[in-house]
Amino acid sequence: MYLIGIDVGGMSIKGGLVDMSGNILYKTSIPTTEKYTAEYSISEDIKKVIDLVLEGAKTDIKQVKGIGIGQPGSVDSKRGIIRYSNNISLERVPVADELHKYFDVPIYLNNDANCAALGEYVFGAGKGYKDIVFVTLGTGVGTGFIIDGKLFEGRDCAGAEGGHMVINTSADSPRCNCGRSGCWEAYASATALIRQTTEAMQKHPDSLMHKIAKEEGKVSGKTAFAAAKQGDKAGQEVVDKYIGYITCGLLNLVNIFCPDAILIGGGISYEKEYLTAPIQSAVNEKRFGAAFNPYVEVKTASLKNDAGILGAAALVL
Amino acid sequence: MYLIGIDVGGMSIKGGLVDMSGNILYKTSIPTTEKYTAEYSISEDIKKVIDLVLEGAKTDIKQVKGIGIGQPGSVDSKRGIIRYSNNISLERVPVADELHKYFDVPIYLNNDANCAALGEYVFGAGKGYKDIVFVTLGTGVGTGFIIDGKLFEGRDCAGAEGGHMVINTSADSPRCNCGRSGCWEAYASATALIRQTTEAMQKHPDSLMHKIAKEEGKVSGKTAFAAAKQGDKAGQEVVDKYIGYITCGLLNLVNIFCPDAILIGGGISYEKEYLTAPIQSAVNEKRFGAAFNPYVEVKTASLKNDAGILGAAALVL
Repeated sequence: MYLIGIDVGGMSIKGGLVDMSGNILYKTSIPTTEKYTAEYSISEDIKKVIDLVLEGAKTDIKQVKGIGIGQPGSVDSKRGIIRYSNNISLERVPVADELHKYFDVPIYLNNDANCAALGEYVFGAGKGYKDIVFVTLGTGVGTGFIIDGKLFEGRDCAGAEGGHMVINTSADSPRCNCGRSGCWEAYASATALIRQTTEAMQKHPDSLMHKIAKEEGKVSGKTAFAAAKQGDKAGQEVVDKYIGYITCGLLNLVNIFCPDAILIGGGISYEKEYLTAPIQSAVNEKRFGAAFNPYVEVKTASLKNDAGILGAAALVL
Repeated sequence: MYLIGIDVGGMSIKGGLVDMSGNILYKTSIPTTEKYTAEYSISEDIKKVIDLVLEGAKTDIKQVKGIGIGQPGSVDSKRGIIRYSNNISLERVPVADELHKYFDVPIYLNNDANCAALGEYVFGAGKGYKDIVFVTLGTGVGTGFIIDGKLFEGRDCAGAEGGHMVINTSADSPRCNCGRSGCWEAYASATALIRQTTEAMQKHPDSLMHKIAKEEGKVSGKTAFAAAKQGDKAGQEVVDKYIGYITCGLLNLVNIFCPDAILIGGGISYEKEYLTAPIQSAVNEKRFGAAFNPYVEVKTASLKNDAGILGAAALVL
């Protein structure tokens, strides 16, 4: 038997046929439209991807144990409904019901960060742990929590939004898309890092960051890290502060969950030990009751580009 | 059958005989010593209180279903061990084992905030809810979480320390006892309110807070609230800011847990609607996905002075 994992994003809907060990046997994608309506639901496009996967993998739906779908935004996973999504502009779409018209297999829907956490737990760097705090540092900050081997979603699947934990109540803290100011997301996302890098570049016209950004063609989440690695002082300052923000939110979550492991995913996680080493020592020293409480390991996530498909597929298991 | 609840505090060890409906049939207490040693363990004093309760209630240990003990600090509830406690200065005390030498009934030990959360859930304002965020605003900020009808303690009972969630990363934020700066506890505890009140009084020599503090004999957690209720502008500012800090941490926890209800206990909770009304409207408006996600009720805890004994007794159930 196989699993189908569908990764819905702002740009594309990716789909893959996955075996029980987490190997992707075939994958494909189609672009996401910006004009889904009651008449043309996103479920129609998801159906297209599933058909393409079955066709491309020369497999029949009867060989499929279930379909898992990862979706940005707020999802009612019990009922298989998208509550709403900002970046694809969806409201109250009963995806599971709509797809059941075409496919007579179990269909699971969940938030993309929850899927990624579950994917790491089942197939990736989280194997063997029972309690995981997963964070993905990308356009936003997404969190997913595994408690005692189970995905924790909050009541009615409406929690687990650790990115929207305010870590700076000061009046001048940056606005967050959620309506509050000073959220972890507004400090620790790649978007926030780019803002912090740009601000530092304005203050330090002789920083190496200018040269690096010119070569890259833009300021990105890598600019400050690359400069810091080449000894640039202003770049190092940006990186130190940014890692401090990541650590602040992670310590908050460690004090609440006391996980076996923290797994860091998303674009920023490609910095590997350069990122995890300072976070690990801060977690060792600064978590509540550090001298008495159990060790918490800090690692990067391992599924990388396929995290979306594998995480969605893991919903079926 | 009855329950025995023991509430260990910095000043006293309280104990009570409790029936299955949460009525305290008899209670007593002895002072806490500051000099517990390997030779004279705190378990000896807990034993004394249990003996006094049995004697005073004219009951036999055979009528007791179990003994629950609530203890400040870090507790290994699975093994019945106090990991450490700052305010009574204890380290690695195997309380359950030590007491089992005297009492042949189940003995449960847990952190006092966890006990208080459980007590509210079983006997108090939390009855009928399945997911609760409980916070006690006293000397510190303690939190307890009920998830799907069960006490959530984090891995190895070392989590649930929501008071040690940093809500202000700014360099000038107040130090917390846990070693970090800007923790929720450093802003939202009664101790923090007293500091905030004192600072405002220095800035506003004509504020009503001076008169109220003089009448009370000290600046307390009530001073600013009393002044605000009498129309004092500076007092109102202190209260508004302080309630803002409480709300900030609660919203963070709502976004993670999405509970049915937030229950607020501790000395500050005696302000009732004056405290809960503004928090309720902030939670209504500012929680993540407010337009789509389920309602979260804000209430004060109901067990008041007996919360410690009843919460500890609830561990047995």
